[in-house]
Amino acid sequence: MGKVYTGASTSIDGYVSGPDFSGFDKLFAWYEAGDVALTVPSGSMTFHLTPESAAYFTSLVQSTGALVVGRKLYDFTNGWNGQHPLGVHTVVLTHRPLEDNEHFTFVSGGIEEAVAVAQKHAGDKVVGLNSGEIARQAIDAGLVDEIWLDLVPVILGGGTPFFAPGKGYELEGPVSVVESKSVTHLRYKVKYENTTS
Amino acid sequence: MGKVYTGASTSIDGYVSGPDFSGFDKLFAWYEAGDVALTVPSGSMTFHLTPESAAYFTSLVQSTGALVVGRKLYDFTNGWNGQHPLGVHTVVLTHRPLEDNEHFTFVSGGIEEAVAVAQKHAGDKVVGLNSGEIARQAIDAGLVDEIWLDLVPVILGGGTPFFAPGKGYELEGPVSVVESKSVTHLRYKVKYENTTS
Repeated sequence: MGKVYTGASTSIDGYVSGPDFSGFDKLFAWYEAGDVALTVPSGSMTFHLTPESAAYFTSLVQSTGALVVGRKLYDFTNGWNGQHPLGVHTVVLTHRPLEDNEHFTFVSGGIEEAVAVAQKHAGDKVVGLNSGEIARQAIDAGLVDEIWLDLVPVILGGGTPFFAPGKGYELEGPVSVVESKSVTHLRYKVKYENTTS
Repeated sequence: MGKVYTGASTSIDGYVSGPDFSGFDKLFAWYEAGDVALTVPSGSMTFHLTPESAAYFTSLVQSTGALVVGRKLYDFTNGWNGQHPLGVHTVVLTHRPLEDNEHFTFVSGGIEEAVAVAQKHAGDKVVGLNSGEIARQAIDAGLVDEIWLDLVPVILGGGTPFFAPGKGYELEGPVSVVESKSVTHLRYKVKYENTTS
């Protein structure tokens, strides 16, 4: 079974979105910080990345086999107009399931079910999870192997935290650090044997 | 006039202290993560750092000429029993000033006055500021040149944020990254010309 990670572009004060869904221009600036054109698997977007971020993002794309997202993000993006940019099957955790289709499965049984369904689609590849409520539920359920933090040079001052407040966890690492422009890519492992509270 | 930085050991969710002043064992683990013995200038403590963190900490000690801290930290540490570990003059911003002495000046006129007094003591060296309320007041007053983030592999889930919620700011960098064990040392510059809100 593939590993599970949660990742997001995050401000140095720990937010993945500023107040009232602001700040995305700052958080996602690194997707346009270089000259390496990279079209996402779904074909819906082309980024222009630094060589360092392009290598990182390519590795993320190649290793990710399925995703779990929340209904709020699904609605906010209008279901990515049909398919997630990463081009992989996406499980939407929601209390108001829609009809499943080729690219999306709607799950209302909780985070364990959502991750299990995603892992079936992912095969040997890893499952990527949303930050925010999804990340908090998953880490509390013991399901998160790694955290992939794209640390962005901005203070947002409020908004949606990467991890909703709650229990603490020790991490191992960073197991990798990629320095780029407008972002530092950091990967950590979750050490479940040593929770902090 | 020397530059002004604010720095702290910070969890990846942005806290410099966990709930109810917990988590310091995790946040400060990097001070004992290696074999390089380093006694602080005041002589009050000896750390055992990795070579990377020892070089970073030595540079911080050599460049810092004075500090500004809040009264809460001063009281919590019992005035560091007479002198701040960095061995430099320390300005305490407080509504309830004590009598000044050789190592401490108490200022109640606001963050601008506290930083100005510290800069006189620092000469050409830099002034270091506390995180938390002090950092928020200073950045909002346009006084912070750099942020020195010692990013620690832990999720605290709550507590005291490095920057109290408020206005957002764009940063430049990281202008330096030092990879170590149990910590990543990152330095950013504040770009006041481009505030995010």
